[in-house]
Amino acid sequence: MAVNLAAPDPSALLPIKGVRLGITEASVRKANRKDLLLITLAAGTRVAGVFTRNRFCAAPVTVARANLQTGGIRALVVNTGCANAGTGDDGIARARQTCAEVARLLGCVPEQVLPFSTGVIMEPLPVERIAAGLPRCVAALGEKNWADAATAIMTTDTVAKAFSRRVDIGGHSISVTGIAKGSGMIRPNMATMLGFIATDALVDQKLLQQATTYAAERTFNCVTVDGDTSTNDALIVVATGQGGAPEITKSDSAEFKLFLDAVTEVAAALAQALVRDGEGATKFITIQIGGGINETECRKVGYAIAHSPLVKTAFFASDPNLGRILAAIGYAGIDDLDVAKVDLYLDEVMVAKSGGRTQSYREEDGQRVMKQAEITVRVELNRGASTATVWTCDLSHDYVSINADYRS
Amino acid sequence: MAVNLAAPDPSALLPIKGVRLGITEASVRKANRKDLLLITLAAGTRVAGVFTRNRFCAAPVTVARANLQTGGIRALVVNTGCANAGTGDDGIARARQTCAEVARLLGCVPEQVLPFSTGVIMEPLPVERIAAGLPRCVAALGEKNWADAATAIMTTDTVAKAFSRRVDIGGHSISVTGIAKGSGMIRPNMATMLGFIATDALVDQKLLQQATTYAAERTFNCVTVDGDTSTNDALIVVATGQGGAPEITKSDSAEFKLFLDAVTEVAAALAQALVRDGEGATKFITIQIGGGINETECRKVGYAIAHSPLVKTAFFASDPNLGRILAAIGYAGIDDLDVAKVDLYLDEVMVAKSGGRTQSYREEDGQRVMKQAEITVRVELNRGASTATVWTCDLSHDYVSINADYRS
Repeated sequence: MAVNLAAPDPSALLPIKGVRLGITEASVRKANRKDLLLITLAAGTRVAGVFTRNRFCAAPVTVARANLQTGGIRALVVNTGCANAGTGDDGIARARQTCAEVARLLGCVPEQVLPFSTGVIMEPLPVERIAAGLPRCVAALGEKNWADAATAIMTTDTVAKAFSRRVDIGGHSISVTGIAKGSGMIRPNMATMLGFIATDALVDQKLLQQATTYAAERTFNCVTVDGDTSTNDALIVVATGQGGAPEITKSDSAEFKLFLDAVTEVAAALAQALVRDGEGATKFITIQIGGGINETECRKVGYAIAHSPLVKTAFFASDPNLGRILAAIGYAGIDDLDVAKVDLYLDEVMVAKSGGRTQSYREEDGQRVMKQAEITVRVELNRGASTATVWTCDLSHDYVSINADYRS
Repeated sequence: MAVNLAAPDPSALLPIKGVRLGITEASVRKANRKDLLLITLAAGTRVAGVFTRNRFCAAPVTVARANLQTGGIRALVVNTGCANAGTGDDGIARARQTCAEVARLLGCVPEQVLPFSTGVIMEPLPVERIAAGLPRCVAALGEKNWADAATAIMTTDTVAKAFSRRVDIGGHSISVTGIAKGSGMIRPNMATMLGFIATDALVDQKLLQQATTYAAERTFNCVTVDGDTSTNDALIVVATGQGGAPEITKSDSAEFKLFLDAVTEVAAALAQALVRDGEGATKFITIQIGGGINETECRKVGYAIAHSPLVKTAFFASDPNLGRILAAIGYAGIDDLDVAKVDLYLDEVMVAKSGGRTQSYREEDGQRVMKQAEITVRVELNRGASTATVWTCDLSHDYVSINADYRS
């Protein structure tokens, strides 16, 4: 059960001129499910991306990263069911075969195709089944298939994730639409597996990459479900330039700022949707760390809390066993932390002041907040001016069930 | 259900001359359970200890660490039910009151008493109930109460943990007996909450501390259940010197080496018992990392695997979804790791060779090993000569149940 997350309304998703999407059932792992997505891009589209920092990055990540360098990207191809990770040289060859097959159908070269895979790790990619499905994707290509595309990239997701924003830049309306998938193996480190955002804005290539990194840092890189950084994480932002707005060329312009905000808003909605649909999630938890010396230590504390199985199970139980949060702060790795300065709040309820339970704290106040579906944990370190926010979910029986049964 | 762990046989536990133990029911948190332990030490006993590195260390840890500096320790007092952590200055005062009460009964000064607490964090220690129980502990003092003592310090433990070793040093027999508790919030960083080891050997104070640190590093500091470092971890080793063997004074002597091995053996049995009785554990997993450039990076990889909820749930399900182990190796934080050199074994079954699934690997071989109650994961990084071992357990439905219901 996702936390306050509804399936996207197809009519609310803005088509992006120059982007067409085609979906099919290719039986990559299981029959009778949409598991193959082809996205084609108009000539001249600029593409930026950030990829997983997992050293065991998947074969498609290696190929996509290389192809992105050569530029002139005309298509993205995405399969679920098989991650093509931990597959060595053979995996690289299969990712390239997929690109070659797309290129042949579209009349471009293989290096103009970016491949993406998600699913089980260390299984060979069934490239022949993908090749057999691709002509059906081509036949289905259309601008209005965003909701279907969001569905086709799901694995253990229970709800498809897609959002749009329209923003007025200098009198011209531009559209941004994005889709993402993921609900387990989620601690993105650069981006999550998989986010695709498209816009019809015309944006300088360098600025587009800058916007992608900026948005990833503030959205996908702030969420965690289980602390497991995927082998296949990727966030891709494409700008077709077909919306009619003039080119954005200056990083200090008001236009770029508006564009940056629009992309970041869509990315944030997608990233938070991953957590809302986190495997087994029953609670959506925002962890705000303030008063740190730098952002790095704030993030350390935020992730220590977000990854603690004891904290996560307490949230699942709606149990204000809040000493577990203090314990997590204590082992977050800040060697010179003065715990006598630390304050802890649950929503507006002050729980601990100066490192100990505050006099005013009443168990029933903590209990009331813990029962909510959305909870904010706020920690004040009181040693500096930096802040960080991490979004996470609880750890429930369903997380164990989902991951114990995933392959069966 | 603990994994291959039987309750201690009281008759197999060696009494240590100079150490007496008394247990009672003090209703610290719940009625009708043994929850208070007093250990008295003969005059002249030498005491060494290592404590949690959690910055939110509990009040008793702060007091015990300080009292240990002054020396001349005559008693340890241990309660379960309340950790007296996250309790600020009031917590320190209550820990000191406990020591004062023990000192009054035994006729020593409060600084000669080391206090220890385990249980719920951020609740005030009911020092009046502890004071009321202490005279009953004194009345019950005896040399043969080790098994009872192991029971009195349990919290969510399902099996009491106590082990003895006898070793011959230069024609003299010395005895080592230890007890420990803990099954959740277990990722000791210095030692676990709580381990007590006693010996009748006569050992130089500096060497005793050296032996304590040595044993902790190789045993308690190599186990993890959930990655949560406790606020109350402590390992205490006491040497009464009453066994009749001559004093061990040289760190390079054969006698010290034998002593070190005996203490480490007892510590290893206790530390592994924590994992075997890890909350909800159904599997005992040994993770061996080889071929690292240094021990630190080997431990990083070992802990990344041991803490991955995805790896742990796969073990619970006996599902050889071993790509999850590769993914954990990949995000362990070794930036220059060449994954094309990494080999992975499950017991004797080679799973991955040079970073990818090996040709010879058959799913049924992985399945066979995964079904065992005891499994060894071996990773060869092939970039150096260092090694490390981490012991852990799986993540089951019972872990969630135990920690969702802990306080109720």
